[in-house]
Amino acid sequence: MQRWKITLEYDGAGFCGWQRQDNAPSVQQAVEEAIKGFSGESVKVTGSGRTDTGVHAQGQVAHFDLEKDTKAETVRDALNFYLKEKAVCVLAAEAVSEDFHARFGARQRHYEYHVINRRVPLVLDAARAMHVPRPLDDEAMRAAADLLVGQHDFSTFRAADCQSNSPIKTLDIARITRAQEHVYFWFSARSFLYHQVRNMVGTLVLVGTGQWSLADFEKAFAAHDRTKGGPTAPAHALTFMRVDYD
Amino acid sequence: MQRWKITLEYDGAGFCGWQRQDNAPSVQQAVEEAIKGFSGESVKVTGSGRTDTGVHAQGQVAHFDLEKDTKAETVRDALNFYLKEKAVCVLAAEAVSEDFHARFGARQRHYEYHVINRRVPLVLDAARAMHVPRPLDDEAMRAAADLLVGQHDFSTFRAADCQSNSPIKTLDIARITRAQEHVYFWFSARSFLYHQVRNMVGTLVLVGTGQWSLADFEKAFAAHDRTKGGPTAPAHALTFMRVDYD
Repeated sequence: MQRWKITLEYDGAGFCGWQRQDNAPSVQQAVEEAIKGFSGESVKVTGSGRTDTGVHAQGQVAHFDLEKDTKAETVRDALNFYLKEKAVCVLAAEAVSEDFHARFGARQRHYEYHVINRRVPLVLDAARAMHVPRPLDDEAMRAAADLLVGQHDFSTFRAADCQSNSPIKTLDIARITRAQEHVYFWFSARSFLYHQVRNMVGTLVLVGTGQWSLADFEKAFAAHDRTKGGPTAPAHALTFMRVDYD
Repeated sequence: MQRWKITLEYDGAGFCGWQRQDNAPSVQQAVEEAIKGFSGESVKVTGSGRTDTGVHAQGQVAHFDLEKDTKAETVRDALNFYLKEKAVCVLAAEAVSEDFHARFGARQRHYEYHVINRRVPLVLDAARAMHVPRPLDDEAMRAAADLLVGQHDFSTFRAADCQSNSPIKTLDIARITRAQEHVYFWFSARSFLYHQVRNMVGTLVLVGTGQWSLADFEKAFAAHDRTKGGPTAPAHALTFMRVDYD
């Protein structure tokens, strides 16, 4: 038996998210079926975390165990062969020790949210970015984002159906960069609450447009109440970028 | 009567290219219909150049004349309203003098071609980039691209059905840059032959993979014969970036 770590890219548009569901195509199911096609083995694939319907990945990590004796390049290329009709591919495969766990071993997860800040509608990036027509004040958003860094109760940005035991999380990085009209929000943490990134972005955008002051943001964050937060930013502009392990 | 200059973004996937055709949706037709919707006037829109089926634009320029007395912001926003179901938008509109001509006044046109150079299949960029699985030698491609700069007979890279009077063109810039697996080919010239950029890229890639030597490339270029050139790189990875006017 060998444990395999795989790194995945996928387009969230065609999936109901990472996790298997009965009546909708999931990334997990696509990968499990590809493993079955390649090896004949029915295995469960464990992802580093679930992604929502519509959320993309450039570096989701998962693990599974195979009886079959094979090489890393073969795992990668054979899975890609079986995945070729699906909007998911294996960027890398690596043999790991049996104590590697994609979910519990993850030290840091990184997400990027892409906003396009211009008056005119989106065309080329319409499927991958959130459109914000009103001018965004980057410095105002950065001041608000700075308040999020560190260990806090993130209830204001927590979806109602979040299954996490606690709303207390530690956000290590909340960085906002701009290249002309493209605004990128980068968040890094050991773990996130359900919808946390999308809820933080939706609320930061309120600060960026001037609808909210920094004080409004601070008060909402301190309320530890989702109903006090801003809207949930759309899924299609969010990409799960990378997972770090020790 | 007022002449208007508009700058357009479009996703080439949904169009048969820039130019109006009888039985397929063109960008020109979409824009002309939007102008009709907004102003009631049936006008002809003149583009700075045709783009092929599948080729995208981030900065196509066109002009047209309107009787209607209106403002630039209104032209931009009203056209975008009428274009909202189409994969094209107006980035900017500007009132220009009647001697402005989108095609004949163009001093420089800029194209970018996007190659992704990795073994594994493309997912997130599959619709916008060319996949080259074999490792590309950037320096070898740059040496070949340098030979293209200047005034030359580009017959080797000219499509059979090109309507240009002469195969002699002056290429001002042929630049190849890389960011990890992303390789960008940037070409600037006053004008290009039909399929010239895609034929140059298809041939440079042969040099990059080592299938052709620099001498092979030089010989093919000097042959002034399309049958001696490399393949035509796919349209979906090409974007018309910008047009400069005096």
